[in-house]
Amino acid sequence: MVIRVLGLDPGLRNTGWGVIEVDGNRMRAIADGTVRSDERCSLAERLGQLYEGLERVIADLDPHEAAVEETFVNKNPASTLKLGQARGVVLLAPARAGLPVCEYQPSLVKKAVVGTGRAAKQQMGMMVKAILPGAACDSADSADALAVAICHAHFRASRAAMAVAAGGAA
Amino acid sequence: MVIRVLGLDPGLRNTGWGVIEVDGNRMRAIADGTVRSDERCSLAERLGQLYEGLERVIADLDPHEAAVEETFVNKNPASTLKLGQARGVVLLAPARAGLPVCEYQPSLVKKAVVGTGRAAKQQMGMMVKAILPGAACDSADSADALAVAICHAHFRASRAAMAVAAGGAA
Repeated sequence: MVIRVLGLDPGLRNTGWGVIEVDGNRMRAIADGTVRSDERCSLAERLGQLYEGLERVIADLDPHEAAVEETFVNKNPASTLKLGQARGVVLLAPARAGLPVCEYQPSLVKKAVVGTGRAAKQQMGMMVKAILPGAACDSADSADALAVAICHAHFRASRAAMAVAAGGAA
Repeated sequence: MVIRVLGLDPGLRNTGWGVIEVDGNRMRAIADGTVRSDERCSLAERLGQLYEGLERVIADLDPHEAAVEETFVNKNPASTLKLGQARGVVLLAPARAGLPVCEYQPSLVKKAVVGTGRAAKQQMGMMVKAILPGAACDSADSADALAVAICHAHFRASRAAMAVAAGGAA
């Protein structure tokens, strides 16, 4: 069964998104991009812009499952709060569209993409392009979103294999 | 002109809300309550529960404007992130319904309700009940939500007065 995975990289200014198609062990890029909010608007309006942008992506590309990276808790509490607010809205959009939303630790995303939990940002971007040669990688944020989609593709496959090994349904 | 103000006190577990009607300097309580999320669900599902609860409140009570307290940035970054995520969704719900959403600093809310920027929590709750004798005050969170609605009622009145004094429209 071919499934479409939506990866998301939340940010108040720029939220990256990337959709891949997963067929067993194979995956290919469908589209990626960046939803931006207007800094001149109020916080509530900016959150509305992010939500509407993601709603459009979900309506256009019809993904089945969504994946979001767990957030590094920043040392700057004001930044953490700002990111948290964007992240809440980014998690909400696929949930409201009925998609299951999985969260993955950054080290797990790196491991799935590069093979090690400690990869440089640049190395990640290169590997995303190697795994998904057709990806546009619209921005660093959309590349990060594709990385978490790749991670989800890996782990959903192993979860399915484990379920089969245990005699259950995938 | 009578306007309805929705005050909101965001939290992932409990989000308090309170609607008041403001007619010049008079105000009265319409309803208040608490939207709760189910801790056994995923974060994305819980955010969906908060959003749907607030969507229902807004549809039922038809407020014109919304007000939210600015958040104390917690010393615990994980709590700040959690609150931020809930807060993003709580700001989004009225914004998506087309309501202007104002944010007020906690000290301003206290000043509007108690008359001083440094009021104890208990004192705040008592004053909310004194100002809005008909309020149910469903929970501490809904009392806090009513407090920020009272604050908004004060400041929108003074903004209107200032606009009139400056020769502009209210």
